[in-house]
Amino acid sequence: MTQMLPQCQNLQAQVNSLLGLLHQEPSLRSLDSTPVESSLRKAISPTFEIVFAGAFSAGKSMLINALLERELLYSAEGHATGTECYIAYAEPDSERVVLTFLSEAEIREQAGALCQQLESINLNQPEVINQLRQGCQAIIQQEGGESKSERAKQARALDFLLLGFVENRERIHTLNNATYSMEQFNFSNLKEAASYARRGSNSAVLKRIEYYCHHPLLSDGNVLIDTPGIDAPVQKDAEMTYRKIENADTSAVVCVLKPASAGEMTKSETELLEKMRSNLGIRDRVFYVFNRIDETWYNTQLRQRLDDLISSQFRDTTRVYKTSGLLGFYGSQIKKTCVGDRFGLDFVFAESVKGTGIQEETPQFVYAFNNYCVTSGKLSPSKFRISVNGFQTPNDNYVRILEEEGTPLIEQLIEDSGIEEFRAAITRYLTKEKRPQLFANLADDQSAPRN
Amino acid sequence: MTQMLPQCQNLQAQVNSLLGLLHQEPSLRSLDSTPVESSLRKAISPTFEIVFAGAFSAGKSMLINALLERELLYSAEGHATGTECYIAYAEPDSERVVLTFLSEAEIREQAGALCQQLESINLNQPEVINQLRQGCQAIIQQEGGESKSERAKQARALDFLLLGFVENRERIHTLNNATYSMEQFNFSNLKEAASYARRGSNSAVLKRIEYYCHHPLLSDGNVLIDTPGIDAPVQKDAEMTYRKIENADTSAVVCVLKPASAGEMTKSETELLEKMRSNLGIRDRVFYVFNRIDETWYNTQLRQRLDDLISSQFRDTTRVYKTSGLLGFYGSQIKKTCVGDRFGLDFVFAESVKGTGIQEETPQFVYAFNNYCVTSGKLSPSKFRISVNGFQTPNDNYVRILEEEGTPLIEQLIEDSGIEEFRAAITRYLTKEKRPQLFANLADDQSAPRN
Repeated sequence: MTQMLPQCQNLQAQVNSLLGLLHQEPSLRSLDSTPVESSLRKAISPTFEIVFAGAFSAGKSMLINALLERELLYSAEGHATGTECYIAYAEPDSERVVLTFLSEAEIREQAGALCQQLESINLNQPEVINQLRQGCQAIIQQEGGESKSERAKQARALDFLLLGFVENRERIHTLNNATYSMEQFNFSNLKEAASYARRGSNSAVLKRIEYYCHHPLLSDGNVLIDTPGIDAPVQKDAEMTYRKIENADTSAVVCVLKPASAGEMTKSETELLEKMRSNLGIRDRVFYVFNRIDETWYNTQLRQRLDDLISSQFRDTTRVYKTSGLLGFYGSQIKKTCVGDRFGLDFVFAESVKGTGIQEETPQFVYAFNNYCVTSGKLSPSKFRISVNGFQTPNDNYVRILEEEGTPLIEQLIEDSGIEEFRAAITRYLTKEKRPQLFANLADDQSAPRN
Repeated sequence: MTQMLPQCQNLQAQVNSLLGLLHQEPSLRSLDSTPVESSLRKAISPTFEIVFAGAFSAGKSMLINALLERELLYSAEGHATGTECYIAYAEPDSERVVLTFLSEAEIREQAGALCQQLESINLNQPEVINQLRQGCQAIIQQEGGESKSERAKQARALDFLLLGFVENRERIHTLNNATYSMEQFNFSNLKEAASYARRGSNSAVLKRIEYYCHHPLLSDGNVLIDTPGIDAPVQKDAEMTYRKIENADTSAVVCVLKPASAGEMTKSETELLEKMRSNLGIRDRVFYVFNRIDETWYNTQLRQRLDDLISSQFRDTTRVYKTSGLLGFYGSQIKKTCVGDRFGLDFVFAESVKGTGIQEETPQFVYAFNNYCVTSGKLSPSKFRISVNGFQTPNDNYVRILEEEGTPLIEQLIEDSGIEEFRAAITRYLTKEKRPQLFANLADDQSAPRN
């Protein structure tokens, strides 16, 4: 996850010789050199961890995909899980994934906690698993479906955990967190690993996924971290996010907020804001992102509420951004498409158009795109003359509009998504503010080693 | 709230004379005649209470407005409150409203509970109120805004309660719940009362509002009851809803659910379903309404999730409805408009089009209407040829489309809103099932008085 900066090549040797001199001098030997060494480590091969925090449905994953202009993260199937995702730099030809599993002990602990709420199940007999799973399914049936009661939801979570355990049995160690490379899974690219990881039973037993991928934003040690939702049903998972935010090694926190679509802060979002405000160390490195901003273009009340919220409560905050991860991400994808593949319908969206029925399904982006074209008020009438026809399918409208308007429309869409502005701000912060500050700290530590 | 049915005019006298005979006979005098009397009361002037339960934002009020085809209820300003709304029948010329206030004791109790969480405020000195309100505002300021922390939210709730107390001081009694008619407020119609009641400070001190209005659905003693959201921030308010649901006098419960827009059941919705399933007495008189159904027309994933949910978990439930309160309600309103008033923009929507800026705002219904016309796939291409143009404002598109398509389009819209189907089902239940059952119960009670 690290690489050495060229300007640092001799730094370690130089600082080490200084420290050597210090230790030779009896009167200075008692000085604690840990801060210097820690700063040194950071300066030589710094990683800048950018933690994305927010509610399950705030769109963190899509926002990260939009930043990196590739489909890397998906929401897990069904419910939010506790898997953390790290995304770090790789050279183009050495992209890779590392998957880290829960240990058997951790799975037992989780299953135990779930069983306690389901009452009277003994996990210590391995042959019981199948019976347990049948029990879970019976409970779900009995309750009338998996979201019919809290009991049914717990049963479903336990069922996923047990199925994940069985399916990945040989990969899970008793006490250690086993890690695997993508080669060990025969995955040929990151996307295959991501779609393995999104399956409910797999995500239930995955502790961490590290993606190493090629993107300039990630170079020089920048690491994006996608965390479990702050409103995760398992309290422990939500707490992991809070610990991560408060960690001194975290360089920046991106708060992905959803009032743009919900109209107000949720209780857990309010808690998140409180936590960050009370922590002086974090406060000045927080980016507030109001995602799903496009929903405010089609809802006057939402737009007014968000404006009020920002002007009254984020008045003194400089780092406030409004984004649409959906428009930004797919905007970047359809730049590469053409009328031959129906601007991505046969390619980028191939999975989402083939539904269960005879008729083709409409991808979410197509709905959002058509709406953007005729209702957002973002397109100057003198530059674009677009109509959406009720007598054509949404997909046919989409293809016709792109055929007529082409690249200028896509560029305008990407601009309005706010993603490029947000990406530029993150980049500027990392290169212009955070990195010089790191070296300043190192200089401080060297000139005045603390006890 | 009651009126006597014509066929019951002689029933009371007849039953009374039977009871008189019973009491004259020493051997029968000990029989408890309460059940007969209770059934009698119900048979003579029955009220059928239909309780609407659901989350704050599920759209209960709009659904009720759509059922009655008039704008009666609004969501309260800001947050959900504990005010219950009753809507009962009135003759056309005698519509009225009764407002019931919290008592001073109840306000003290609520303020006390809020203060406890805000720490160290003594409510027993009346002159302190102003100081308290300043304290609340200081807290809100200090926290950086009213939704910045739980503490700020509590302060805002207390501020509303105190302001409501001050503004309505002479209307609030020490221990009793004072009630007022609309004449006492100089309201000339129900709408004026409703807009008084929606103001945050007023709704904070209102315990109940009873609207008596003219609509066939309400005749014969049917009463619609809008309850506080099951996810109301004040636990007591949510509990009121649950008590209401479980009350034996409740004739039907309408569960307004929002998975159509949220994609899954929320925790409090799951609790609501559990509660109803465990109560045999309620089970067979529940209507499940998936409101905001139009959102599934523009989101393939939401549509699939809702279909899965209904087919897996509501398989055995007959009373499942899909509605759009928004389309149904405004559809019924624009039937009465014409091109002269821009199909309601200058009239029904006059309030929502005049925004703060120079340009006219777009009412929520207009966004929904335009989207319905070209994206929902509900309109047959052979009957309707509609386009929405990006070079016109949403309002201009709306007026042009209605001018071109007129009544057939509005009728189709109302049909697709599902409101008429739901209204017919409620009416059928009340007239064909519930009423005969009431008389059957009366017959049972009379033939076999219980001890």
